[in-house]
Amino acid sequence: MEMHTQQLNELHMVAAEIPGYTYGSDESAQSPITVEEFELLKQAARFTTDDVHWLRAAGEAFMGHTQELVKTWRDLISAQPHLRKYGLDLDGNKDERYAERSGLRFQQWILDTCFRDYDQDWLNYQQEIALRHTTLEKNKTDEARSAPTIHLRYIIAFMAVVADPNLLKPFFRRKYHDEEKIERMHQAWTKSLWLQIALWTAPYTNANEAPNEW
Amino acid sequence: MEMHTQQLNELHMVAAEIPGYTYGSDESAQSPITVEEFELLKQAARFTTDDVHWLRAAGEAFMGHTQELVKTWRDLISAQPHLRKYGLDLDGNKDERYAERSGLRFQQWILDTCFRDYDQDWLNYQQEIALRHTTLEKNKTDEARSAPTIHLRYIIAFMAVVADPNLLKPFFRRKYHDEEKIERMHQAWTKSLWLQIALWTAPYTNANEAPNEW
Repeated sequence: MEMHTQQLNELHMVAAEIPGYTYGSDESAQSPITVEEFELLKQAARFTTDDVHWLRAAGEAFMGHTQELVKTWRDLISAQPHLRKYGLDLDGNKDERYAERSGLRFQQWILDTCFRDYDQDWLNYQQEIALRHTTLEKNKTDEARSAPTIHLRYIIAFMAVVADPNLLKPFFRRKYHDEEKIERMHQAWTKSLWLQIALWTAPYTNANEAPNEW
Repeated sequence: MEMHTQQLNELHMVAAEIPGYTYGSDESAQSPITVEEFELLKQAARFTTDDVHWLRAAGEAFMGHTQELVKTWRDLISAQPHLRKYGLDLDGNKDERYAERSGLRFQQWILDTCFRDYDQDWLNYQQEIALRHTTLEKNKTDEARSAPTIHLRYIIAFMAVVADPNLLKPFFRRKYHDEEKIERMHQAWTKSLWLQIALWTAPYTNANEAPNEW
C-alpha cells in the first residue's frame, strides 16, 4: 500500500517504510534509565512542557524539508575527512546503500525529536541510536562495511552544528515570521539535543570511573 | 602581595589565589588528545577564529560578574535534590569549604572559557576538570567528603542551563547593546560548551565499546 505525502505528514513519518527503524518494537534496545529517571534529567536541563510545545511547532516547519536539512549537515560532514570516514566503506568509497538507509533514519530522527512523546519507547530508541554509533551495533543494521565506531567526541562536537541557529532558523522562517517564537523553537531544539547527547553517552561509559549507574 | 581588582581583570583572573587551580602546571592532568587532534574537533563543531573573537567580547562582559553567574547556576542546582547531592557531605549537609573553593574555580572557568588560548595547557586542564567530576579525582582537591562522582548524564543535561541564552544574554547586555553581536557571543559560548563536553567525556569512556582512542 502506497502512502501519500499527506498521510505520512499526519503520522509525522518521512517515509512509509524506513529500513532498520525499530522504534517502539521489541528489536529496539532497552534504555538503562526509566521515564522517572528521565524526568530528573529534564529538570536538570530545565526542559519543560513549553519546550514540548515549541518542538511541535519546529517539527511543523521541518516537515517536507528533512531531506534538505540532513543534506545540509551531511555536506558539512563530507567536507571533513575525519568525519567523512565514518560513512565510507573499507576501500574508502562512499557506501551508497548505507548512506541512503541511515539518511532516511536521520531524517526521521528530526521529526521524532519534535513530535514523539519522550516516553520509554523514545528512551529505548535513544539507546538504540547510541549503540548504532558504537562497535556494538555500528554497521550491523545496514550490513555496512564501514568504520567500526564513531568516536563520541566527534558526535558531541558535531552537535554544535546540528544546534547551529544559523542553519536551523532559515527552516523555521519558511513557516513562521515571529522571531521570538522562532527563538523559542531553537531553544527547545537545543535543550533536546543536550538531553539526547546525555543519553547517547550511556554505551560509551566506563563503569569503573563513574560507578553506580552511568 | 595583595592584588587589586584592576590587576586581576588584566590577568583575567577572578582572584589572586584560587585553591586547587592547577592550570598550566605539572599538577594538571594530561589530555588524551593533542592540539592537532583538537583542531579537527574544532572543525567538526565549526568553531573558528570568529568564535575566539566573540568569546573575548563575552569575557569582557562577564568580568566582575562571575560570582553572580555562578550563583545563578548554583541556585538552580541547589533547588534539585538529584543535583544538589553532588555537593553535599555524607551527612547531607552543605560542605561550605568545598562549595567556596570549587565555586572560585567555577568562576575562573568562565573567564578561561572566554580568554584562554585553547592550547595544550587548556586541553590538559579540561582533562583535569573532567577527572575531578569522576571517582578518580572528585573530592580529592578539596578534601571534601561528598558523593564520589558526578554522573556524566547530569553534567551534560545541566549544560542546557549553562548555555541558556535567557540567563546569559542579560550579562552581555550590561556591556553591549547590539543584539546581533550579543547573539554571536552566545553562539561562540555554546560552541565552546559542546567542545568542552566532548573533552570531558574522556575519563568516563569505556574503551571496550568505543575502541581506538575514545
